[in-house]
Amino acid sequence: MTTRDFQRARSPEAKRVREAAILDAARRLGSERGIREVTLTDIATAVDMHKSAMLRYFETREEIFLRLTAEGWQDWAPDLAARLGSIARADDDGAAQPAGDGTRADAGTRADAVAAAFASTLAGRGMFCDLLAQTPLNLERNVSVEKVREFKLTTRDGLGQIVPAVRAALPGLAEQDGVDLVAAATSLAGTFHQIATPGAEVAELYRSDPRLSHALVEVEPRLARILAAMLRGMLVRRGTAA
Amino acid sequence: MTTRDFQRARSPEAKRVREAAILDAARRLGSERGIREVTLTDIATAVDMHKSAMLRYFETREEIFLRLTAEGWQDWAPDLAARLGSIARADDDGAAQPAGDGTRADAGTRADAVAAAFASTLAGRGMFCDLLAQTPLNLERNVSVEKVREFKLTTRDGLGQIVPAVRAALPGLAEQDGVDLVAAATSLAGTFHQIATPGAEVAELYRSDPRLSHALVEVEPRLARILAAMLRGMLVRRGTAA
Repeated sequence: MTTRDFQRARSPEAKRVREAAILDAARRLGSERGIREVTLTDIATAVDMHKSAMLRYFETREEIFLRLTAEGWQDWAPDLAARLGSIARADDDGAAQPAGDGTRADAGTRADAVAAAFASTLAGRGMFCDLLAQTPLNLERNVSVEKVREFKLTTRDGLGQIVPAVRAALPGLAEQDGVDLVAAATSLAGTFHQIATPGAEVAELYRSDPRLSHALVEVEPRLARILAAMLRGMLVRRGTAA
Repeated sequence: MTTRDFQRARSPEAKRVREAAILDAARRLGSERGIREVTLTDIATAVDMHKSAMLRYFETREEIFLRLTAEGWQDWAPDLAARLGSIARADDDGAAQPAGDGTRADAGTRADAVAAAFASTLAGRGMFCDLLAQTPLNLERNVSVEKVREFKLTTRDGLGQIVPAVRAALPGLAEQDGVDLVAAATSLAGTFHQIATPGAEVAELYRSDPRLSHALVEVEPRLARILAAMLRGMLVRRGTAA
């Protein structure tokens, strides 16, 4: 699509097409370089628009990335909820248990499977993890209050899909446990992703200085270990054997 | 101290005095406004130096705040280790148990006390939490590799104080559990602090729209609940009753 096509676009449909093109460019640049390296000018250049024209579609660079974060939740929540549904059903059926030993999977084994589902669906979405960390620090602070409201309604929908699916897989848990779990999982995934993707020079430093081995982080196994422990502890506290 | 005093300073001692003045100003401004709102020019103005002169002491704004983060670890780690030491000793003595019922405190009760010690020592240090979140996203990415190395050796010292103290209070835990606990506690404290301190307009939005109640976060109780569950789960996994 050329600059002229963009300038001609006036209908609501044409506007949606332009917005989608801007979001596509931001998504591509963000996943290539990391969010912090992508400026509004980079995105404008990629869609062949003037920066001033682009500001008719999005108020700020941060609004573009907050929209991508909302899309990230809309992509992640149903995928995770489906995986949690499989864990719940495997147990109900008495078939295909995570334990694989022909007996009903116990609560502890299911807690491990739930933690693994969170860890793998998050760690497999690197740009979403990057965005999760940027959201409270930067993105939500550089958009209008109405855009924050829209975004928070999207995360609320995500919680509304994930928390009941967690509680179906682990019936011992309370609503608050599910909310705490999602808050911890998304916060840790965001921070661990940042720690695990330093610049090239710093990555080399961590590998070369044995005193810095604690700085090397693998997102998925660490996240899975921490969430599994958290879930088992929640079950113990609620009186369900883990 | 005036600009002239600074310009005269040449001895190593005078250099240390200037560095301390710069760090003091950054600490004061950062705790008043939040780190993100403090520029290098703000700090230079506060110590009555030219920005170019200040760059002889610190390469970048981020180096100043990374030094404050290192100081934050040096302040937090011994305080937390001392509190964990009291939990371990209370149990050894058979006196002053957290349970307060005259019996030996069980592992679960001690896990709750350890979690509460992490949560209160972190939540009571707002600027440190702000810095913890900024570190992997911004601070470590805008300083030299040598400054990252120095910083990581400080966090390593902090781990070296905290992890043994956690394991003395909860003898069932493995070294990796302690490292995971510190990683989770510092990551969550950083992110929850950011979520809990939005701008004034957004804070008002969260209070006024009942659909957004999930966006309201109280750092200390949420952190204490999550870490307590994590610790109980780690104990269960290691075969220690929790």
